[in-house]
Amino acid sequence: MNEKKGMCFELFSNGVAFCLFGSTGDLAKKKIIKALFDLFSKEYIRENFFVINVASRDYDDESFRKYVSEVLKTEGVSESDSFLQRNYYFKLDYSDQESYKRLVSRISELEKKYEQNVKNRIFYLAIPPSSIKQTISNINSSTDLKDGKNKIIIEKPYGENFCSATLLNRFIKKLDIEDNIYRIDHYLGKEGVLNILIVKALNYLFYSTFNNKFIDNIQVTVYENEGVDDRGKYYEGIGAFKDMITHVLEMLSFLVIPPPSDMRAGEIKSSKLEFFKNIIIPDNDFISKNYVKAQYLAAENIKGYKEIKNVSPNSFTETFVAFRLETKMDYLKGVPFYIKFGKRMKEKLTRIDVVYKKSDNDFSKKYFIDEPNVLTFVIQPDVGIKFSFNAKSAGAKFCVESTELKKDFGSSNLIISDYERLIIDAVNGDKTLFLSSDEMSCMWRYIKRIDEIFIKDGSRLEFYKPGEVIESADNLIKKDGKKWIYI
Amino acid sequence: MNEKKGMCFELFSNGVAFCLFGSTGDLAKKKIIKALFDLFSKEYIRENFFVINVASRDYDDESFRKYVSEVLKTEGVSESDSFLQRNYYFKLDYSDQESYKRLVSRISELEKKYEQNVKNRIFYLAIPPSSIKQTISNINSSTDLKDGKNKIIIEKPYGENFCSATLLNRFIKKLDIEDNIYRIDHYLGKEGVLNILIVKALNYLFYSTFNNKFIDNIQVTVYENEGVDDRGKYYEGIGAFKDMITHVLEMLSFLVIPPPSDMRAGEIKSSKLEFFKNIIIPDNDFISKNYVKAQYLAAENIKGYKEIKNVSPNSFTETFVAFRLETKMDYLKGVPFYIKFGKRMKEKLTRIDVVYKKSDNDFSKKYFIDEPNVLTFVIQPDVGIKFSFNAKSAGAKFCVESTELKKDFGSSNLIISDYERLIIDAVNGDKTLFLSSDEMSCMWRYIKRIDEIFIKDGSRLEFYKPGEVIESADNLIKKDGKKWIYI
Repeated sequence: MNEKKGMCFELFSNGVAFCLFGSTGDLAKKKIIKALFDLFSKEYIRENFFVINVASRDYDDESFRKYVSEVLKTEGVSESDSFLQRNYYFKLDYSDQESYKRLVSRISELEKKYEQNVKNRIFYLAIPPSSIKQTISNINSSTDLKDGKNKIIIEKPYGENFCSATLLNRFIKKLDIEDNIYRIDHYLGKEGVLNILIVKALNYLFYSTFNNKFIDNIQVTVYENEGVDDRGKYYEGIGAFKDMITHVLEMLSFLVIPPPSDMRAGEIKSSKLEFFKNIIIPDNDFISKNYVKAQYLAAENIKGYKEIKNVSPNSFTETFVAFRLETKMDYLKGVPFYIKFGKRMKEKLTRIDVVYKKSDNDFSKKYFIDEPNVLTFVIQPDVGIKFSFNAKSAGAKFCVESTELKKDFGSSNLIISDYERLIIDAVNGDKTLFLSSDEMSCMWRYIKRIDEIFIKDGSRLEFYKPGEVIESADNLIKKDGKKWIYI
Repeated sequence: MNEKKGMCFELFSNGVAFCLFGSTGDLAKKKIIKALFDLFSKEYIRENFFVINVASRDYDDESFRKYVSEVLKTEGVSESDSFLQRNYYFKLDYSDQESYKRLVSRISELEKKYEQNVKNRIFYLAIPPSSIKQTISNINSSTDLKDGKNKIIIEKPYGENFCSATLLNRFIKKLDIEDNIYRIDHYLGKEGVLNILIVKALNYLFYSTFNNKFIDNIQVTVYENEGVDDRGKYYEGIGAFKDMITHVLEMLSFLVIPPPSDMRAGEIKSSKLEFFKNIIIPDNDFISKNYVKAQYLAAENIKGYKEIKNVSPNSFTETFVAFRLETKMDYLKGVPFYIKFGKRMKEKLTRIDVVYKKSDNDFSKKYFIDEPNVLTFVIQPDVGIKFSFNAKSAGAKFCVESTELKKDFGSSNLIISDYERLIIDAVNGDKTLFLSSDEMSCMWRYIKRIDEIFIKDGSRLEFYKPGEVIESADNLIKKDGKKWIYI
């Protein structure tokens, strides 16, 4: 592979006060603490940096550093002293407004210690969705959230339904702090997702053919091999569709938008919004013909969905969904998007396949070459780009074969984790990979429609064994004369 | 690499009488004998097959079998008995018409021995170009060359200039045997050349963009690291341009023609002819601005061209040439073809690069991505297809790089040699990879024009050291605002 470097942009930052709400919780333990350590040790965040860990439990700076050290050890980090010294603990009484004021004073004190002119103060809210609104309100009463220094990162889900999402957005709008809100969707931090936008924008042959003259259909596959396990309570309320749809629509928006003139958030945001606005809100008939939902059964050593704790034995919550989506956008009119995702599938994998039209010339027909060109973005577990095309097989015989050219980023040690990327982007004020309230609203309009018609209709629920191919999902696309590139 | 087999065509044949003129000569020794052995041992030619070796020297069947056995041994073949038994020798007096009649009788005798209904009788003329016309005339007087059984394979060059080529063609036309004439250009037998046609025809994204809306320019590079060595006499009369131009135009024709409906020779032939007819015959001004010629100098242990035996010390014969060619064909109007070939270059390599337009969007301009998409056909020494495109580099930083996706046929043991392929094609009556008299005439019109203006003008000759980049060739393309993909 012959590679030439293009232009590179350094994305490091000095002077960051990182205030981690829910620092004793699961997300902090599993993701955030390690991401902060990595950003610091790789020098993406350099000098004048500290972390103030906030929770309601009884820790002090020293005991919490021990806790952080233990968390990092389970991640294989043995040397973490210089990072640990920058960690502080603040015991917050969530219900007491005075407690927030003391927190802000403590942050200011540490900011002075580390440097006078720290410009970045990040409040990372790794707390239950139900507490988000109240917490923002309390922070807002204790400091000026509009001064350009304070940023709030909110974790998905942003509301549990259309109604609560709308209420949260309205509240943020009322406070006039949308500019400082970073709605994180960790999928958008994945190495492969930004690449979707970049690969399309920087290749004439791909972006100049990105329209219904050349493209036959677009496919998204998100497979998990894990099940719902101990998250039955959360999952019962949400199901596969609502759990994954925002990830998928966000990824697709990066594919569909025209090449921006810049990586500035503003322009990309408005193009993405255009995509979300143009998703066709389907009618009852379309939904019923173009949606498949299913739930996984038990298998050897694997609990069926209905056997999971906190799941009703009569639950018709789906763990797999396949559906067709369309857009009103002129250049993609008539190009169907086929989307499928599910738990307990044969493997963990996320990919997008751009399927070009089949060869329409007589030569292709004569020699039965039925394989279209496909441009594939592999998002996880490996990261890569594939392009498949037809060529002659070597030898005297006249054989042809479809071949996949592949560029693999999978093994590169330069890859950074999704949380690392998104935190450093927030620090740098780059909102490209975060969700706006407008995006959320548009998506919720679509989600709500599917939810009220199809997802709530238990009679259509099918069942599958772990790892099994779901036949109805095959038929969904076959009836349109097409096939899944990845089954 | 995920590969799926397409439809395959077996190309084997039974019942072949192969009559090799010039069987004691260089080409037979270096290429033909081994090709026949391989075709037989790989079973591309199966039963009822024999070779009658023709020359003027004193051999008999047994002594010539020993000779063949020795030739094969130098190629690493130790077991050749069943092939040797099918080899016969015939001592021909080239000037005696009776001798030809006896040859034909001998062939008929052997055809009876091997099988009554042998349908293929191949006269392979591995003899000097100056003897071709007379030999065909003599064969014609001894057997019916129009009966559909007899085929004549002629080696390049077909005439040493426009005039002698025209005379040979006229003679063949007069005999009305064009259908049975196979003008061999061993380049066309190379694995990669047929692939050019097939890859383009079978991929929607490539053939539907094969026009001046998408393609910026097309480049051909044919480098040899060897020099002229002991072929000074031949080379002085011909030079790099005439030595290589037919190879290059033939390869290009496979790229340029639209997807045929079939692999039948007829349709491909007429499309190719269309390409040859539409080559713009350049005027003096164009030639002088768009041609570079050069000759190699001596280096350590390497003789300069002028020091070679039979080369004049004042020779201005070129050993390197670079030039621009254009076509009047509507869909490629304005797309320049840049072609360069030479001896004593840094390595042996033949490739065609289809260079797409550069990204014209603001995003590309902003991030200085200057690399176009390129579809590359590598013909030798390896065989492969490459496609280069721009992608994000792995990591947090915003870097982009141009990456080459590659499919390599190089190591496949299924690859057959150019002579094998062309012989089996002739046996099967497939003229796709052979040159017609019309093609030859069209090409000669163009060749003659360059020859009379530029090649004969010694004042423009430049000089280069073995392995050196020739700066004028760079400037030739730079002045048009482009660059060589492969330097």
